[in-house]
Amino acid sequence: MTFQRARRPEHKRLRYEAILTAARALAERDGVRAVSLADIAGAVGMHKSALLRYFETREEIYLRLAADDWRDWVAAMRAALAPLPAGAVAEVAAAFATTLAERPLLCDLLTHAPLNLERNVSLETVREFKRTAVGSVDELSAQVRTVLPALTDQDAFDLVGSVSLLAAGLWQLGRPTETLLELYELEPELGYGGLPFVPTLTRLTTTIIRGLLTA
Amino acid sequence: MTFQRARRPEHKRLRYEAILTAARALAERDGVRAVSLADIAGAVGMHKSALLRYFETREEIYLRLAADDWRDWVAAMRAALAPLPAGAVAEVAAAFATTLAERPLLCDLLTHAPLNLERNVSLETVREFKRTAVGSVDELSAQVRTVLPALTDQDAFDLVGSVSLLAAGLWQLGRPTETLLELYELEPELGYGGLPFVPTLTRLTTTIIRGLLTA
Repeated sequence: MTFQRARRPEHKRLRYEAILTAARALAERDGVRAVSLADIAGAVGMHKSALLRYFETREEIYLRLAADDWRDWVAAMRAALAPLPAGAVAEVAAAFATTLAERPLLCDLLTHAPLNLERNVSLETVREFKRTAVGSVDELSAQVRTVLPALTDQDAFDLVGSVSLLAAGLWQLGRPTETLLELYELEPELGYGGLPFVPTLTRLTTTIIRGLLTA
Repeated sequence: MTFQRARRPEHKRLRYEAILTAARALAERDGVRAVSLADIAGAVGMHKSALLRYFETREEIYLRLAADDWRDWVAAMRAALAPLPAGAVAEVAAAFATTLAERPLLCDLLTHAPLNLERNVSLETVREFKRTAVGSVDELSAQVRTVLPALTDQDAFDLVGSVSLLAAGLWQLGRPTETLLELYELEPELGYGGLPFVPTLTRLTTTIIRGLLTA
């Protein structure tokens, strides 16, 4: 499709959403690191200069998507935790791992936001993103404490923060290049059996919760 | 300084080392992500084409440095753990955090190796790096078990792996841009008090060890 210049607010809104949708699809297919502003512009049939009337930079586009996905993750965790009885340690750990596994773009963005995305945007854009991310961490912490009331505020923050960092790292390790896959064929012990995301993150998260509960 | 073409093996060795030294200094100053092959070539006074007689790519240079720093970290951990009595949980956690804090380039490379560096090198180069990294994790796991003999092999692997991933993430979060620093001035709660590396990593590592010991 090719766009003409949008003049009415509802048309602008449609283009704004079309850009986000295209950026999401490209990053889900190729990884955030591989997608350029030109790729996104090409996918929506706009010139780069036209796209830059909607977003400051490529990085702003991905920070908007990251904010959307943080909010979406919080909602999914609320639904996953709601039916759990108090003290359900293994189930809380599994809820973190499965809701994150269902959000591969968020897992990828957890690495790229601090590393790259927060670097090439305005103060106002990074402020909006940080408010959403920090607000989401606070809300996840409060949710976890309803199931695990023995955790302090600091404990719950440590849990959510650790799970986010571990998920970010495990997700990247789980996407080896062709050369690495070839190497793991030759020497499987170098690939740690592929470190499967959900069981590994569930196990590590269970360990952290147990450690917090015994402090 | 400007190099002429090295013809004797000892001269080649000196240039090889000079390239690694320059790449290390640039990355320690500016971060791995900011250093290009041209920057490294400029710092040693070589043309890029001459530098590529010594290394395949920029990524190979940084994987060599990462391998050196893994070995160096293993040695530092051996020295830090040697005097500890059995069961010294907090001291093992502090040893991880302080030896990593002393190796900022390794902390930076823990993110960049899987994300970028392992992508643009030959099978032989990535094989050498992976053997060193995996061998180092194995050796660290064995070291930790001498102080914490209640840990299984899997426990010790989970501990070393988790600490590496958490250190990688915390290190990146600890290097905010100018814009982020400006934001944290305005809204300090968005910066989590700067998440100081050593106390935060010590606390999280202590939690993980406690969780592994209560499993």
